[in-house]
Amino acid sequence: MTDTKLLREQGVTAPAGFRAAGIAAGIKASGAPDLALVFNEGPDYTAAGVFTSNQVKAAPVRWSQQVLKGARLRAVILNSGGANACTGPGGFQDTHTTAEAVAAALSEWGTETGAVEVAVCSTGLIGDRLPMDKVLAGVTEIVHEMAGGLVGGDEAARAIMTTDTVPKQVALHHKDNWTLGGMAKGAGMLAPSLATMLVVLTTDAKADAATLDRALRRATALTFDRLDIDGSCSTNDTVLLLSSGASEITPSPEELEAAVLAACDDLCAQLQADAEGVTKRVTITVTGAGADGDALIAARCIARDSLVKTALFGSDPNWGRVLAAVGMVPFTIDPDRITVSFNGSPVFSDGAPMPGAREVDLSGEDIHVVVELNQGTGQAMVRTTDLSHAYVEENSAYSS
Amino acid sequence: MTDTKLLREQGVTAPAGFRAAGIAAGIKASGAPDLALVFNEGPDYTAAGVFTSNQVKAAPVRWSQQVLKGARLRAVILNSGGANACTGPGGFQDTHTTAEAVAAALSEWGTETGAVEVAVCSTGLIGDRLPMDKVLAGVTEIVHEMAGGLVGGDEAARAIMTTDTVPKQVALHHKDNWTLGGMAKGAGMLAPSLATMLVVLTTDAKADAATLDRALRRATALTFDRLDIDGSCSTNDTVLLLSSGASEITPSPEELEAAVLAACDDLCAQLQADAEGVTKRVTITVTGAGADGDALIAARCIARDSLVKTALFGSDPNWGRVLAAVGMVPFTIDPDRITVSFNGSPVFSDGAPMPGAREVDLSGEDIHVVVELNQGTGQAMVRTTDLSHAYVEENSAYSS
Repeated sequence: MTDTKLLREQGVTAPAGFRAAGIAAGIKASGAPDLALVFNEGPDYTAAGVFTSNQVKAAPVRWSQQVLKGARLRAVILNSGGANACTGPGGFQDTHTTAEAVAAALSEWGTETGAVEVAVCSTGLIGDRLPMDKVLAGVTEIVHEMAGGLVGGDEAARAIMTTDTVPKQVALHHKDNWTLGGMAKGAGMLAPSLATMLVVLTTDAKADAATLDRALRRATALTFDRLDIDGSCSTNDTVLLLSSGASEITPSPEELEAAVLAACDDLCAQLQADAEGVTKRVTITVTGAGADGDALIAARCIARDSLVKTALFGSDPNWGRVLAAVGMVPFTIDPDRITVSFNGSPVFSDGAPMPGAREVDLSGEDIHVVVELNQGTGQAMVRTTDLSHAYVEENSAYSS
Repeated sequence: MTDTKLLREQGVTAPAGFRAAGIAAGIKASGAPDLALVFNEGPDYTAAGVFTSNQVKAAPVRWSQQVLKGARLRAVILNSGGANACTGPGGFQDTHTTAEAVAAALSEWGTETGAVEVAVCSTGLIGDRLPMDKVLAGVTEIVHEMAGGLVGGDEAARAIMTTDTVPKQVALHHKDNWTLGGMAKGAGMLAPSLATMLVVLTTDAKADAATLDRALRRATALTFDRLDIDGSCSTNDTVLLLSSGASEITPSPEELEAAVLAACDDLCAQLQADAEGVTKRVTITVTGAGADGDALIAARCIARDSLVKTALFGSDPNWGRVLAAVGMVPFTIDPDRITVSFNGSPVFSDGAPMPGAREVDLSGEDIHVVVELNQGTGQAMVRTTDLSHAYVEENSAYSS
């Protein structure tokens, strides 16, 4: 991305044509910020979205999927403090009412908006109804708090945090004078049950909905889909991309795709790095598979293995567990042709351990496991973390 | 099993025609017993075996699979203190040499035996060669230690323990005067990487190899295959069934199948109960699936979910995580038709929480989760455990 400059101090309001805000609406008992709004001032309102593959989908996911069929969004309202998942017809009605309230408030503020132009995202505990009195009062307030410039984006990024310790933002400024911005929350190892990954990307580049959709799907497949903290998939995961077209520049689809991919990749690294309680950032790379898809399956198999993850927590180069995990892939492998390395040191080759395999130093925070299957050219990388005491602690104590 | 009497104080030497022994051969640094022998005195030597589905198979598994093609076994030699997995051609040669040494020692002792009549089982850390001087000296010694009666069986069951805290044995005495005995090790949550599950079953009933094989496969599919501590599959899992025919009774295939199933089920419960460091014995039952296979997939999905398991460690009735886990099954479900209960208390129905769902008491040691999919008659049960601090501790500190 030599054509672009990447800044992490800027987010969804870096591109022209976007305002945002974040406030404390009282949804969280703690009084922390819990309601965010991203508003597209136009002139374009094209949008694309990617959602959780979980069959148990939260009410806001079902609503936003419906809204995105129009490929047009004026605003995204996001709340932390409650996932609004498994809450029945009443929960869906709450989402609908929220979108209507946002549309009404924006219309009154001066921009005629329909509820079907408002996406809704929620994150928090599954199974509780939202305190709608607080949500609706917050909606009325937040419209008046919207700020241009960079303050609004920063506030919005803070209001969607749950167990995140830092807001996650990124902005890519292209040399041709268009910008892509974004914010993300979640996937912190502290409490992955609410690791609902919410991401909003904005751009002032002009692009039709199909181009946005293609760029977003390609980028999420290569980034967020390969961030695997514990194999669990949220009921609320949502990634949205909104275009205002305010730069009046139409980049090539390739340029746009590259920018969306770079922004997603950077937000992904920020999510992995903020995995509090986790002591290791782990990258699993599988090469030499028959196809990229097989490599991805094998990398996930290893990344999800509790025994591999606990060994890495202990800085233990227990490569036998990597072999045992990869042995469970649903396609044929030849164990005698596999090589394994930890942080560049070969530990297993030709069916047997390498000298010094038990002495590889894994005491640092970054661990790179490479498994070469030697049966083709397919490859894939998955980001994960170790399995630590903090993971058990936070996840056993969350709802109580 | 009203036709049989079940005793846990007896094991592989409960049936007539079997001797066994367990000694400390010095394979374990601790000096604990680490070598076991089960010897079939005949007159029959029919046998069946079921092995790990992991593609990365330990040398003893590959050897024993080859040996079992003859469907005939005179002896099983088992060692703890080393898995002999991922040890290359040298490791396989070690297994072969061990079988030859057992055959030679038994021949010298008075029973002409070939190496191809000797199965080998190993359990311990993956990747290290066994100290063959100690193994071979142990083999010579153990043949002279073989005892009939119940002492030998008990000693053998103790010598295959790794992090198991108690030996696991079972004997079923049939009213028609034939007996089935067994011993097992492994799957304790303390260190499932060496949760190599080794099981040896013996019977003095007369049965041909095909009948033994069918009974064993059916029983393991319904028992050990549904004990899922952490989704990891060992490189060394082995279950063997040996018949001496010494009772001269030929039970019906149904009677034999019922006895093998009852013995496997009881050993399975013992393995789950000895999951030290684990605080909860968890049973996941899925009913109302389109087929039993679908129910099993769904039950495994829930049993392997780290967020479900950490919540149960915290005695937290976080039913939302059960829903999120079941939402990831690879077949279509209707979330609005699912009902979930914890220990008999309904917590989710008709797409929404039941009153009191967050207050269900899960403080006891046994937790039963039932998920009704309401789309058919398929059902399955999986035994698992919670995900505790002790799991992380033991598995992060094992090889160091």
